[in-house]
Amino acid sequence: MPQGKVTTVPQDGLTTRQRRRQAVFAVHTGDGKGKSTAAFGMALRAWSAGWPIGVFQFVKSEKWRVGEEAALKALGATEGGAPVAWHKMGEGWSWIQRAGTDRDHAAEAAEGWQQIKRDLAAETYKFYVLDEFTYALKWGWVDVGDVVSTLAERPGTQHVVITGRYAAPALLEAADLVTEMTKVKHPMDAGRKGQQGIEW
Amino acid sequence: MPQGKVTTVPQDGLTTRQRRRQAVFAVHTGDGKGKSTAAFGMALRAWSAGWPIGVFQFVKSEKWRVGEEAALKALGATEGGAPVAWHKMGEGWSWIQRAGTDRDHAAEAAEGWQQIKRDLAAETYKFYVLDEFTYALKWGWVDVGDVVSTLAERPGTQHVVITGRYAAPALLEAADLVTEMTKVKHPMDAGRKGQQGIEW
Repeated sequence: MPQGKVTTVPQDGLTTRQRRRQAVFAVHTGDGKGKSTAAFGMALRAWSAGWPIGVFQFVKSEKWRVGEEAALKALGATEGGAPVAWHKMGEGWSWIQRAGTDRDHAAEAAEGWQQIKRDLAAETYKFYVLDEFTYALKWGWVDVGDVVSTLAERPGTQHVVITGRYAAPALLEAADLVTEMTKVKHPMDAGRKGQQGIEW
Repeated sequence: MPQGKVTTVPQDGLTTRQRRRQAVFAVHTGDGKGKSTAAFGMALRAWSAGWPIGVFQFVKSEKWRVGEEAALKALGATEGGAPVAWHKMGEGWSWIQRAGTDRDHAAEAAEGWQQIKRDLAAETYKFYVLDEFTYALKWGWVDVGDVVSTLAERPGTQHVVITGRYAAPALLEAADLVTEMTKVKHPMDAGRKGQQGIEW
């Protein structure tokens, strides 16, 4: 990236230093790999910057992201390192203690979003990964207008990355940074299944 | 990703389990963000799988990737964790002890590639990130044919991720997995410079 090259300078009355410290809202979308992986890669920098990290996973996967979770939690547990909190929908969310019987995905997604709103209001974290959150929006479980206005009004310097396919236009419009990951070639095309350590 | 769904089954005489353990060669290219970040995200899974990790950075950046380096080294230093080795061109590579005076980028890139060849032959690591290696190929510092044949013949199960723009067609042809990161929107477009903790 051409660090430091800008094409326009905004007339916002901010210094470069102040602008550097603005909170970023990023969206990783597209049908390729790397959307969540890049978000977790960004979490490495966040951790290194000493920022508390909150991960919210919105789609239950057979494998979840056990590798990333183990690694980020190990970082969170290092002495002096920034804490890492990892929350999963489909396991009842970590802040809710209850038996995991009948699931209502819509209600669980809405609960997850309400917790994120509470955390944003409280500035609980400085770096948020809302993993595969786009699906909760696409399926109407969470209102995109509420997400956009909540993010626009979030206090302090809280960076938010939303990942997943089919990102709503309103989300892309509101985001500071949007990257589309496009699949050019995948081992599955050649009949290879997921690779342990690579895919999960 | 639709885990477990394959469109064809290769007639290679391998079981699914064997195919799952095949080494992956991935390329992250395109002009968007997330190419290297996703590679470092993959390194989290590799670390969690207990694989020794070797990172080779081929383009000197003012900021390098200090956040990722600090975080992955912290993981490498955890008790029982897989080791992480981080090598940088432009600082004379870590295996060469010498004063850093006049630089010859072409010679340094060639040296870096020779070390990678030695490491692949010795199976030093199980997960390699050749960060921004595409430029070394583009600028003719390293021969793409040598890279393709070396990777094709690498022993054991060694996963390799090459990142950078302008990936050579021969590289894409040889790769198992190619993802293109496309910039849809970037804060720089609005005159914002890199954000500490986000960009580096």
